[in-house]
Amino acid sequence: MAYPEPLEALVAAFERFPGVGRRTAERLAFHVLREPSARALAPAIERAIAETRRCRECQNVSQDDPCPICADASRDAGLVCVVEEPRHVEALERSGAYRGRYHVLMGALNPADGTDEAHLTVGRLVARVKKGTVREVILGTDPDAEGEATAQLVLEALEKLGRKDLVVTRLARGLPAGSAIEYLHRGVLEDALSGRRPVRRR
Amino acid sequence: MAYPEPLEALVAAFERFPGVGRRTAERLAFHVLREPSARALAPAIERAIAETRRCRECQNVSQDDPCPICADASRDAGLVCVVEEPRHVEALERSGAYRGRYHVLMGALNPADGTDEAHLTVGRLVARVKKGTVREVILGTDPDAEGEATAQLVLEALEKLGRKDLVVTRLARGLPAGSAIEYLHRGVLEDALSGRRPVRRR
Repeated sequence: MAYPEPLEALVAAFERFPGVGRRTAERLAFHVLREPSARALAPAIERAIAETRRCRECQNVSQDDPCPICADASRDAGLVCVVEEPRHVEALERSGAYRGRYHVLMGALNPADGTDEAHLTVGRLVARVKKGTVREVILGTDPDAEGEATAQLVLEALEKLGRKDLVVTRLARGLPAGSAIEYLHRGVLEDALSGRRPVRRR
Repeated sequence: MAYPEPLEALVAAFERFPGVGRRTAERLAFHVLREPSARALAPAIERAIAETRRCRECQNVSQDDPCPICADASRDAGLVCVVEEPRHVEALERSGAYRGRYHVLMGALNPADGTDEAHLTVGRLVARVKKGTVREVILGTDPDAEGEATAQLVLEALEKLGRKDLVVTRLARGLPAGSAIEYLHRGVLEDALSGRRPVRRR
């Protein structure tokens, strides 16, 4: 005996999500059938699709186009931080440390989940830089293998523009503030050593 | 800046699923907005809800009522194996080792996810046993803390019936076939020792 076909179809729909295996998909599908409140997921999906769009400037998910950040004339339009996903914009905004604009790639290169250049908004970034307002692009992808490959892809696309005056920078890597050196792994310490900076003497 | 409200609502809807934390909910919601094929989840949910029902006998999820197993006159209606979820019926059916009927509790007692007696179909099992056809109930819940507590709950409910002729059994615990003793954890070995059986001599 297999599951009834509509239940099997629901399990399969969950299983197509990244990081969701068969066992998790079964658990989620079963929850839908057992818990009436879980059914709210279906209209939430429909509504999120119907009521959000991509900002024409930064490609972030937004209810308005342009998004509130791109519409904010007080933010530096010449400084663009390139991030992978909307939640990275969230994190940087929470830090309060950034007053420029963003460009959301909507993913990172990842052979494991099939994300390649065609899924990313690199072309939109290039078109944006071509317009001439942007003077610095900060590569703000994650400090992991996917993020590094993605940053490299963006860098190469920008270099093809041949704009000598364009500055491309990368977020600093090193000791995370508030951490304890004894608990940090090798890669962090390597970055901290290779990126060490001279201390200014009085 | 927070997420646009419809995206936040979608994240919240995913987050209400058991085992789904904020980070995973964000990843799933983001996938919905990025990947058109993921949108199939919404109609799959609607369809699974509309096209499946509970079998009036065993409470399993089914397209037909009674379900194919309960409708199969060749299966022993006097023998009922009580399991937690539909996927446990699946597993036992795949084994080909069982020719009785089932009773699906639709969960196990679990304070962590809020599953209590009211969520389980114990009352339906008691009503089924009262009808008189059932002569043996096999407690087939998982061999973990939740499964044990659930088995105890079912046992107590059945004992209240005062049916002296009803046999209640529990699936055997011990060494899993095909395993290597050196890799098994303490609880398995304890079960194997306390449940040891005399070997018949020729």
